[in-house]
Amino acid sequence: MIPTVDETHDPARTCWVPGANGHSDFPIQNLPLGIFSTAGTDPHGGIAIGDHVLDLCALADAGLLNGPGLDAAKAAAAPTLNALLALGCGPRAALRTQVSALLSDAVNQPVVSPLLRRISDCTMHVPTRIGDYTDFYVGIHHATNVGKVFRPDNPLLPNYKYVPIGYHGRASSVRPSGAQVVRPAAQIKSTDMPAPVLAPTRRLDYELELGVWIGSGNTLGTPIPIDRAAEHIAGLSLLNDWSARDVQAWEYQPLGPFLAKNFLTTISPWIVTAEALAPFRTRQSSRPDGDPSPLPYLFDPADQERGALSLTLEVALASARMKADGVPPFRLSRGPASSMYWTIAQMVAHHTVGGCDLNPGDLLGTGTISAATPDGFGSLLELTRNGTLPIELPNGEQRTFLEDGDTLSLSGRLEADGFVAIGFGSCVGTVVPARAV
Amino acid sequence: MIPTVDETHDPARTCWVPGANGHSDFPIQNLPLGIFSTAGTDPHGGIAIGDHVLDLCALADAGLLNGPGLDAAKAAAAPTLNALLALGCGPRAALRTQVSALLSDAVNQPVVSPLLRRISDCTMHVPTRIGDYTDFYVGIHHATNVGKVFRPDNPLLPNYKYVPIGYHGRASSVRPSGAQVVRPAAQIKSTDMPAPVLAPTRRLDYELELGVWIGSGNTLGTPIPIDRAAEHIAGLSLLNDWSARDVQAWEYQPLGPFLAKNFLTTISPWIVTAEALAPFRTRQSSRPDGDPSPLPYLFDPADQERGALSLTLEVALASARMKADGVPPFRLSRGPASSMYWTIAQMVAHHTVGGCDLNPGDLLGTGTISAATPDGFGSLLELTRNGTLPIELPNGEQRTFLEDGDTLSLSGRLEADGFVAIGFGSCVGTVVPARAV
Repeated sequence: MIPTVDETHDPARTCWVPGANGHSDFPIQNLPLGIFSTAGTDPHGGIAIGDHVLDLCALADAGLLNGPGLDAAKAAAAPTLNALLALGCGPRAALRTQVSALLSDAVNQPVVSPLLRRISDCTMHVPTRIGDYTDFYVGIHHATNVGKVFRPDNPLLPNYKYVPIGYHGRASSVRPSGAQVVRPAAQIKSTDMPAPVLAPTRRLDYELELGVWIGSGNTLGTPIPIDRAAEHIAGLSLLNDWSARDVQAWEYQPLGPFLAKNFLTTISPWIVTAEALAPFRTRQSSRPDGDPSPLPYLFDPADQERGALSLTLEVALASARMKADGVPPFRLSRGPASSMYWTIAQMVAHHTVGGCDLNPGDLLGTGTISAATPDGFGSLLELTRNGTLPIELPNGEQRTFLEDGDTLSLSGRLEADGFVAIGFGSCVGTVVPARAV
Repeated sequence: MIPTVDETHDPARTCWVPGANGHSDFPIQNLPLGIFSTAGTDPHGGIAIGDHVLDLCALADAGLLNGPGLDAAKAAAAPTLNALLALGCGPRAALRTQVSALLSDAVNQPVVSPLLRRISDCTMHVPTRIGDYTDFYVGIHHATNVGKVFRPDNPLLPNYKYVPIGYHGRASSVRPSGAQVVRPAAQIKSTDMPAPVLAPTRRLDYELELGVWIGSGNTLGTPIPIDRAAEHIAGLSLLNDWSARDVQAWEYQPLGPFLAKNFLTTISPWIVTAEALAPFRTRQSSRPDGDPSPLPYLFDPADQERGALSLTLEVALASARMKADGVPPFRLSRGPASSMYWTIAQMVAHHTVGGCDLNPGDLLGTGTISAATPDGFGSLLELTRNGTLPIELPNGEQRTFLEDGDTLSLSGRLEADGFVAIGFGSCVGTVVPARAV
């Protein structure tokens, strides 16, 4: 069952941590989970609150938690959140409830304050040991836009409205926000070249996605039915599936993208939990009347009713010159995440229907989420119509694809009437020149 | 550098372990690494010798090893071989040298005998925690044969002779020989159906591949040059990439196979090390004159000279009725592994050229290895010409694709003049009926 709203979402609940109230991403209604380290400490679990991180190891040691919430905090002593996520929704929700109480009642300030670290003193890590990373393709406008580039006559393939298309990605190269984006070199062959060359990509792009973190897993051979899928979804991050379009065009047939994508995937390092997302659940509305109904294994009335998210996504770019000149980042796109043709629960049900096992800490990407209109397209490939329509930056520079020195930022904001909005934190990367080839 | 022949390959070297001399797969010249458990012990490292397993934990404790060989054996105390493989070729080769000496000189029998376990008392496990699994497509006859099925007008795509085509597979569902093959259910839609249905696959197939185990890895952003690739290759196993052809046909565009492959991959659980393979290295000969030369990052004269293997692969099938009636398994195919268009070193160099990191214990599949002639085709899709040419079994049964109760076995034999042949052990799976959908 998708988590429901409770007292932890109460908009009247405030927090005694300085600066946490009014914080756009991490107010007390969010409480995302992450793995952090500070000078002299190994990576371990924490919860973001405003501009601070609550140290879960220290909290577990302080005797302020009990029951399943304490179990969850103890599991967060590890260098990854896999053990905590494996506990499933019960302990995770109990930890949230207890931490929310501790951070809202000022009586706890004297004992809990020493357990807070300034977020600026923390290094964030990929929150789990990702066993497998799967990338889906649920943004129907993206699929259509990209299809027009690679297959002009056949943009949306016949399987798209039946199959939540996905493919396996590379887990090893997932990195937290801030990791350098080294321009990759690989084989490139444009149609006017007689043979390919090894060269740095000339068409470096980003893809605006959500990352889905798996909580409890399933046994090989035992599918997760769609009406139980929510129990296996721990939470979300932002995800940038950096893509080398010229590499992709040459290599992707017949088995899909490989080097075009596996050089780096950046995530925002905080897991915004399924519990935190409860107020922002909304009706799945991306399937127009007349489209085929989902097959029964992909259909759950509760998921149709609450499986989508009231979420606005935004992408901004700052060139090296803009940064040097103090010009603020330029917004490339802004749009709702409502064009996901398949819900996250449908992704999970489909992934496992043939028996494939998901494990705690696994990562799913949604695929690029583009809005219906160009101001909400989620990649440069789409925004510049495959590089034919350059974007003008505020200082007069033009962009078709990313250039060395560009800093690209994803952000997201969950909003719903009567609730305090929350966000994901940073998902940022700066492009650096290719290695010599 | 590809390991060279030394005294451990001496055909005159015999072993005091009963039954080890003349053993077709695991003579003293092989000494493959694996992870095993016995009643009452947790999984840990061992070396196969004849019908026994030498317990590496017990061996390390016995004070019979020293230096890097001891380091390697100590690393094998873990439930996976990742730590041992991370040590790279030096300690692995030292362990081989020392174990070969211990098992060949009968003076050691009194102290080493107690460290041997009967292989029949051992449960074998996947030898590593596989961080990522990548499947390549280097069998050119297979690529051509399959291309004819899925793209009759365009069997071998223009990139094939330039790019070692690969895609990311599912690491979580890799299992050791003997794991049940539950017939997967997923979406199927033949051309005569108006819409897909969720149904058990009707076209369950196997794929005959080699699995490549990565030893030491590389850092994200630092490619492995082809002339250093051999240092990163720990060894090989057999690999069966079970495939649901009807699922594949419906789902695979545009991003490649997904549920058609991720329900199970079976490996032979012993890693036949790069050191053991030294005598069986041979010239890479699958690239006909007139084909384009490999790009420089894929070309190494030493790899061209010794990058291929003198290896014969074989597949056998026993139906439920054959097994009940005592009919021996029927050979489906037998052929040389010489049609790999790309060497393993080329696979590694290509995988990392854009900066992607490989990690110790990662698994690469070669893709299906089909010989040039039908008696050596590596899948039923090819052997039965996409199900149109049934195979007759010795008892009169027919097969187009696998049926419930079928047991499918891969085997491989490395042979070279003047050396003792070695093999991989079992890579077996029996098909069981689909779950109710």
